[in-house]
Amino acid sequence: MNKIPVAILGATGAVGQKFILLLSNHPQFVIHELVASEKNEGKRYQDAVHWIQSTDIPPQICNIIIKSTDDSLHSPLLFSGLSSNIAGPIETKYAQSGHIIMSNAQDHRMDDTVPLIIPEINHEHFELIHTQPYRGKIITNSNCVTMLLSLVLAPLHTKFGIDHIAVTTMQAVSGAGYPGVPSFDIMGNILPYIPMEEEKIESEPQKILGTLKGKKISPAPINISAQCYRTAVRDGHTFSLAIKFKNKPKQNELENTLTTFIGYPQIHSLYSAPSHPVHVSHTQSRPQPLLDASKDRGMVVTVGRIRSCTIFDYKMTVVGHNTIRGAAGASILNAECYLDLGYPLS
Amino acid sequence: MNKIPVAILGATGAVGQKFILLLSNHPQFVIHELVASEKNEGKRYQDAVHWIQSTDIPPQICNIIIKSTDDSLHSPLLFSGLSSNIAGPIETKYAQSGHIIMSNAQDHRMDDTVPLIIPEINHEHFELIHTQPYRGKIITNSNCVTMLLSLVLAPLHTKFGIDHIAVTTMQAVSGAGYPGVPSFDIMGNILPYIPMEEEKIESEPQKILGTLKGKKISPAPINISAQCYRTAVRDGHTFSLAIKFKNKPKQNELENTLTTFIGYPQIHSLYSAPSHPVHVSHTQSRPQPLLDASKDRGMVVTVGRIRSCTIFDYKMTVVGHNTIRGAAGASILNAECYLDLGYPLS
Amino acid sequence: MNKIPVAILGATGAVGQKFILLLSNHPQFVIHELVASEKNEGKRYQDAVHWIQSTDIPPQICNIIIKSTDDSLHSPLLFSGLSSNIAGPIETKYAQSGHIIMSNAQDHRMDDTVPLIIPEINHEHFELIHTQPYRGKIITNSNCVTMLLSLVLAPLHTKFGIDHIAVTTMQAVSGAGYPGVPSFDIMGNILPYIPMEEEKIESEPQKILGTLKGKKISPAPINISAQCYRTAVRDGHTFSLAIKFKNKPKQNELENTLTTFIGYPQIHSLYSAPSHPVHVSHTQSRPQPLLDASKDRGMVVTVGRIRSCTIFDYKMTVVGHNTIRGAAGASILNAECYLDLGYPLS
Amino acid sequence: MNKIPVAILGATGAVGQKFILLLSNHPQFVIHELVASEKNEGKRYQDAVHWIQSTDIPPQICNIIIKSTDDSLHSPLLFSGLSSNIAGPIETKYAQSGHIIMSNAQDHRMDDTVPLIIPEINHEHFELIHTQPYRGKIITNSNCVTMLLSLVLAPLHTKFGIDHIAVTTMQAVSGAGYPGVPSFDIMGNILPYIPMEEEKIESEPQKILGTLKGKKISPAPINISAQCYRTAVRDGHTFSLAIKFKNKPKQNELENTLTTFIGYPQIHSLYSAPSHPVHVSHTQSRPQPLLDASKDRGMVVTVGRIRSCTIFDYKMTVVGHNTIRGAAGASILNAECYLDLGYPLS
Repeated sequence: MNKIPVAILGATGAVGQKFILLLSNHPQFVIHELVASEKNEGKRYQDAVHWIQSTDIPPQICNIIIKSTDDSLHSPLLFSGLSSNIAGPIETKYAQSGHIIMSNAQDHRMDDTVPLIIPEINHEHFELIHTQPYRGKIITNSNCVTMLLSLVLAPLHTKFGIDHIAVTTMQAVSGAGYPGVPSFDIMGNILPYIPMEEEKIESEPQKILGTLKGKKISPAPINISAQCYRTAVRDGHTFSLAIKFKNKPKQNELENTLTTFIGYPQIHSLYSAPSHPVHVSHTQSRPQPLLDASKDRGMVVTVGRIRSCTIFDYKMTVVGHNTIRGAAGASILNAECYLDLGYPLS
Repeated sequence: MNKIPVAILGATGAVGQKFILLLSNHPQFVIHELVASEKNEGKRYQDAVHWIQSTDIPPQICNIIIKSTDDSLHSPLLFSGLSSNIAGPIETKYAQSGHIIMSNAQDHRMDDTVPLIIPEINHEHFELIHTQPYRGKIITNSNCVTMLLSLVLAPLHTKFGIDHIAVTTMQAVSGAGYPGVPSFDIMGNILPYIPMEEEKIESEPQKILGTLKGKKISPAPINISAQCYRTAVRDGHTFSLAIKFKNKPKQNELENTLTTFIGYPQIHSLYSAPSHPVHVSHTQSRPQPLLDASKDRGMVVTVGRIRSCTIFDYKMTVVGHNTIRGAAGASILNAECYLDLGYPLS
Repeated sequence: MNKIPVAILGATGAVGQKFILLLSNHPQFVIHELVASEKNEGKRYQDAVHWIQSTDIPPQICNIIIKSTDDSLHSPLLFSGLSSNIAGPIETKYAQSGHIIMSNAQDHRMDDTVPLIIPEINHEHFELIHTQPYRGKIITNSNCVTMLLSLVLAPLHTKFGIDHIAVTTMQAVSGAGYPGVPSFDIMGNILPYIPMEEEKIESEPQKILGTLKGKKISPAPINISAQCYRTAVRDGHTFSLAIKFKNKPKQNELENTLTTFIGYPQIHSLYSAPSHPVHVSHTQSRPQPLLDASKDRGMVVTVGRIRSCTIFDYKMTVVGHNTIRGAAGASILNAECYLDLGYPLS
Repeated sequence: MNKIPVAILGATGAVGQKFILLLSNHPQFVIHELVASEKNEGKRYQDAVHWIQSTDIPPQICNIIIKSTDDSLHSPLLFSGLSSNIAGPIETKYAQSGHIIMSNAQDHRMDDTVPLIIPEINHEHFELIHTQPYRGKIITNSNCVTMLLSLVLAPLHTKFGIDHIAVTTMQAVSGAGYPGVPSFDIMGNILPYIPMEEEKIESEPQKILGTLKGKKISPAPINISAQCYRTAVRDGHTFSLAIKFKNKPKQNELENTLTTFIGYPQIHSLYSAPSHPVHVSHTQSRPQPLLDASKDRGMVVTVGRIRSCTIFDYKMTVVGHNTIRGAAGASILNAECYLDLGYPLS
């Protein structure tokens, strides 16, 4: 099978670099074009990028000449790691030109016509693209916290109904991009504020867990309260989560529901899919971001310390990889699912 | 005025060292005896201790010869930084011998006859000592999280009634003593479990905020759910706190109540008392443990990011110094209050 | 005595903030004007600054209205925490206008007419100012590593003659200013390169230890080889130092020479002077930046682990505070010395 | 081919865990027995170990019942991750019983009859085993710093002759085992002393680079001065190295010599051998432990920032993985080489 040529928007950024690593050996896609800001246009990738990954730039990528966002592109499929605010109009432009865009940026996530997809949960929301006015299409994945959180909430909500949850996040610095958080601020410290983060977490999961009715998503009526902190962790977000159910399950029911949860990517054996998206740990001091975030190629969420709560029904700890499952890996899984479902590239 | 000679139990440990620093220039107390484990008996303090403070051992302390917990002591007043489990019988023995003990250890905290004191909140609980069978007396301060949390809860509970709270803690490594948490476990990581910590936080505040009825404490009926994490911070605990009131205040009422809160130590100008025990910050990304834990000699708690919550009434961030206000400084303030109230030393 | 009004250039930066802290209670100086980049002109200091110190902005500073570097200033004495490259022309302009400038910036350090001063070592180099063409004068202090290193080298060079030294530095992130080093680069890591740092360390000490002959400095003939690393330390530089002498001293001679070293600031009891600029530690695992950098208000250098070397004569560890003794504190001590020597302010 | 059954001594420790990870998919060896201290005897491995690796315990290992060092073993080949001082007599006992021991412990390294092997450098030293009095044999690998350093020195010494070197090490906490360095000591700090480390680095490389003459090693006459520091890095040691040659090469000769260096493991394609043991980086701010220590399965050393030195001939930065190439991986490569050379297992 011929691989599909793809372009990466925001290729020199932190998410862009993860796209390159995850796509460089992908069986369906081949990186054909790299797009970055104007100042890097015309440079070889290896000369333009400040590479911050612990494996080297894949050799076939080093000498690709960077294009600017003003250029037209040949690849039918684009992965967008563009920054918020910048992403919006650029993605719109490329969609108008006929490209299919898998975007990690927040700008279009909450648009009525744009699917916000986690393939295990709501692949039927892809249908929203038919309401888009563009020749091409824009498909988004959620904020990293929303992503990891929704994978835990979805099977529980389906089975037991969730009324409300409270979540305190302890987030890794890689979530802030590069250069991101100054070392002087975060080393040996905790920052109690991440701009616009709590707002996203309190609104995106309802869209993801919502129901497609006609051409609209009816959001799931779950009440979410989030408190977000930045911590001195490199990769991997950790959540302190408490859940109040409509129908409280027994603990073993809850655990079984998480452990056995699978969706479209598992049933159809998509390349980037983990065998099970949620892992339950029974070890007392797990999960930990350093030890658990990269499990199963960084595509699973680990839940541990599940126990009764005197206020909610259950409380627990959740850990997942914020820049793989929570960002670049999510976009790629979306693309795999989109194609497997038979949606067209042009 | 002659200073009162005091002994420090557990003088070489992390809390013991803080006692030494805080007492070495104290206007009422003079360190007269240092007590440590048997292996250090007979050594000069400076030869026995692995000193981990950023200021030097006070010169007058260096050559004090360490006593063992088998020895009898001459000082009427003892400060105990002994470890849990070890502390219990040793403190009982010294109380039987007639000493007044201000203890930071957990062993006797929940005993019916032992006061668990935060002088701003419940100095009248000192009266419990009359129910103790010893010639001397045991007075305790709470767990570090309980201490910092209770200072925030107390004025609010008095004025508006608190129904229930949820708290997620992000705790500094100094709370684990020395050598404490291995660097290999915590650097760049978060640990989701601290043995016995959640149990203490869910039960001690009710005793502190409780009412003395006759010779018993009637605990405050507040429902507390705690989730405790260890983070790569040196000093200063951070809490993500959400409160549901019986009578929901307006936000400015809540803030004013915290800001204007004072108690016995402020009214009577005790030496270790901060001018106000709770500070409210309006800066967006504060409080932070690195910048705020040492405010006002480490004796205040800073509350920030107070905002509405969709599930509870308000959510907020709390930061305080775990080994000063939360441990050694608490015991010392208890001693100052005890004497100021006119309780005897023998 | 009336305090001298001073201005701080680069007042919102990392060094500028240290100037504010160190000058806010100074017996000779009063902060009168704050100067920052154009974008902050006209703002109140507290609204413009991203304050990163662990003590609050001194209250009398909060509402000072920031001036721009285009403005003329009323204060006779300026402290410059400006960034390299920016500093040069601005300092020249103010010197031409008649101001006396104590600069921490590198731009003028190696100018033939500009004194590069450490008052304990070469206060007679102030005489160079008579060769300056300006109505005012520019006086500089050295790079932070040079500063801390020279305090160790100076007394040894005077007494025994130093032929050559090798130094490997492990430098704190605060030396890179703010925002400085990205956390993603340095947490749990070591960076083997600091732009332009080795060049400064290999050339500035020779000027400082040099001899004023007529109107020129004849540099000290010491051969220096430096290797510079950035480490995940907040404040305090650590050096691994090896020295080859012209006349090798015995170890106790070497230690005594360091311990007893004093200079003009000590003899004349300048306000910011430590009682002894160099402290020798005999504790096995000291000095450490976390425990020793802030000793004596951050104005001393601590030397430890002095021992024989099979290649050089002696090797040792050196720790000092890079933004106090190595930057803001150095400029202030220079100003105190300048005035004490009777040099004029206009 | 049937795999050779092997035992791991010290199987629950930090090095023991690395042995398990590296051997669990090895084509020549199969883990047959796990040996730990008496308190763990009889327990299943997964119940006894405090597992600190970021991948899970291999499933076939979980239920192996731990033996004690008093037990006799069935495996002909033992890998020893025992702690210093404990290792000596235990290894001797098993050698007397006929086992071949590949040891990472220091106790026998400098014994006259014990080979201290790096297969790329001195595989002919295996011949020393014929001088051992045991039925079995003891073969050792060096200290982690010595290992990484020697791989850089060996090709240069062979070609140009090295007269003396100075090295300052910045070592990862994993080198101290587990629990190892307390977090309170090392977070945001640097420790200037590692017990017995400098002594090993100053003496082991001479044995490794030495010449086998008859039945004795004549050590290489290289003068080494080491200064060792512990830093807040998880894995990967970093060295600041300066070399004085007997015959100074040009820089490109030096680099070519490092880049083209291969030895027995490369020529004979041993399983754990990297294609080249030394990698030269020309990127300005590399190597870094976080990005470069795990290159090529952690079995290579990366050298960067090679440049002239005003005192030595060249200075440079070296990074390598201390617990893989510097410990467990080294022992395994030794075993592969031993067998490939045709030495017997009994």
